[in-house]
Amino acid sequence: VTTALVTGATGFVGRQALCRLAEAGVEVHGVTRRSSAPGLHAPGVEWHQADLLQPGQAERLIGRIRPSHLLHAAWCVEHGRFWNDPANIDWLAASCRLLRLFAEAGGRRFLGVGTCAEYAPQDAPCDERDSPLAPVSLYGVAKHAFHLALAAFAGTTGLSHAWARLFFLVGPHEKSQRLVPDVALHLLRGEAVPCSSGRQVRDAGAALARLLLSPVEGAVNIARGNAVPISMLACRLGEIAGQPQLVRLGARPNRPGEPLVQAARVDRLRDEVGFAPRYELDEMLADALDWWRAQSPE
Amino acid sequence: VTTALVTGATGFVGRQALCRLAEAGVEVHGVTRRSSAPGLHAPGVEWHQADLLQPGQAERLIGRIRPSHLLHAAWCVEHGRFWNDPANIDWLAASCRLLRLFAEAGGRRFLGVGTCAEYAPQDAPCDERDSPLAPVSLYGVAKHAFHLALAAFAGTTGLSHAWARLFFLVGPHEKSQRLVPDVALHLLRGEAVPCSSGRQVRDAGAALARLLLSPVEGAVNIARGNAVPISMLACRLGEIAGQPQLVRLGARPNRPGEPLVQAARVDRLRDEVGFAPRYELDEMLADALDWWRAQSPE
Repeated sequence: VTTALVTGATGFVGRQALCRLAEAGVEVHGVTRRSSAPGLHAPGVEWHQADLLQPGQAERLIGRIRPSHLLHAAWCVEHGRFWNDPANIDWLAASCRLLRLFAEAGGRRFLGVGTCAEYAPQDAPCDERDSPLAPVSLYGVAKHAFHLALAAFAGTTGLSHAWARLFFLVGPHEKSQRLVPDVALHLLRGEAVPCSSGRQVRDAGAALARLLLSPVEGAVNIARGNAVPISMLACRLGEIAGQPQLVRLGARPNRPGEPLVQAARVDRLRDEVGFAPRYELDEMLADALDWWRAQSPE
Repeated sequence: VTTALVTGATGFVGRQALCRLAEAGVEVHGVTRRSSAPGLHAPGVEWHQADLLQPGQAERLIGRIRPSHLLHAAWCVEHGRFWNDPANIDWLAASCRLLRLFAEAGGRRFLGVGTCAEYAPQDAPCDERDSPLAPVSLYGVAKHAFHLALAAFAGTTGLSHAWARLFFLVGPHEKSQRLVPDVALHLLRGEAVPCSSGRQVRDAGAALARLLLSPVEGAVNIARGNAVPISMLACRLGEIAGQPQLVRLGARPNRPGEPLVQAARVDRLRDEVGFAPRYELDEMLADALDWWRAQSPE
């Protein structure tokens, strides 16, 4: 029997994966620090409240659920701060503890959430099999360090594991300072949109759920096959909203330390995990715009 | 004022460094899991009992001492088991917590203890500045992962840090299953000595103490400048003990996963830290033999 625990389950990525896992007929447990969060009552999902940074809480959680599968999506993700947040070190420590507890309680498969920021800056699309890893941010380094520890631990204990490197994402429930909602909200208010210059996006929940339930081992890029620079993304949003003239590229400087362009190879995701995107980009952007329109007090 | 805390202070390396720090006039605090250990009462050293793997103990220790300098020598080191001991993951987590607590309490300089096993296997002497890192054991990976996190954290917070990569060691107080005492005890009993084939050695405490009190940043190899294969080491021990015929090279298989030969470049240690070995190898081996002779019930 498959019992899946999802950490960071109220986050942008965890929330989506949770629903896909429930749809797949798996017994799903979600954990969040919050006592309440909107949309928590997905069918087939049992919720738990725990702060994985506090001593003893992971022990109680794992002891109670004894999951066979773990999707570890929790990490510090405060917008604009997480790149060099000292809390990245706390999450590295907490993730190591969670890994040990999970394995000791009979856990069989651990899926960690990594980042495109683990790769060295490069023009070629990042390939899990041979692109050099050289993270520059504390976020990228801490994620990379945990992946090294996870892979070595799995190698010596027989634990099954995978490591999903997320490229930049777009979808409903994003934090409102993120790119797409930021652009969408400006457009909905009829305001000009100041933009920095380059990123790539993808809706990842379904890919994570599929990867967790697959036997694929090691690092897997989670990205759209086609690179989408922010310029194109913001312009498409402007066009979909009927106000392309409001999108002003280059009006906002790039954030220091933030990687500019990272494109991904998705051979492993497509061929080994067997995942193909369900949504076209325009459709995703239109959905996001609709979602934010529904949230906006007008 | 310099207040130095040494973790793993009853271990082979920590114990030596502790005495050198006390001799240097620094206020020294040693921490050990044990309630008692032989030779703990070094002059100028205050002892603390704490288990850094238990929640809350590092908090209490750092809060009480508020050290300006930290030599973190504690790790899992059970002979023959530590290479792939799952506890390596616990020590990675505990080291991250210690780092955060130290920095938050105003700590200024963190010296971590790494290992030659972080380097990729290679014939050339390992160089901190350009030799590739590719640990194969869980021990090497966990140490490497912590070094990455330490360096990135230091880079974003302004903490001063160094990382001492220890090559194989010889000296008094070694665990009795280790190479030199093993050979020495066999020789003292007049028994034949089964040996595997290659390693390198050095007495490291004084180098660690000097590195902690220096401003040198980053990874530094702690090794003798000249590579000493185990064959030569064991043979010299046999000769010093007057029983060279008892040393039988090749009679014991090499331990699986254990790196065979790692030689080091010591330019950084010599030129930047300004450290030169005080003892010649023969002198060290004779001292070790004398020390073990004194310990042996004859």
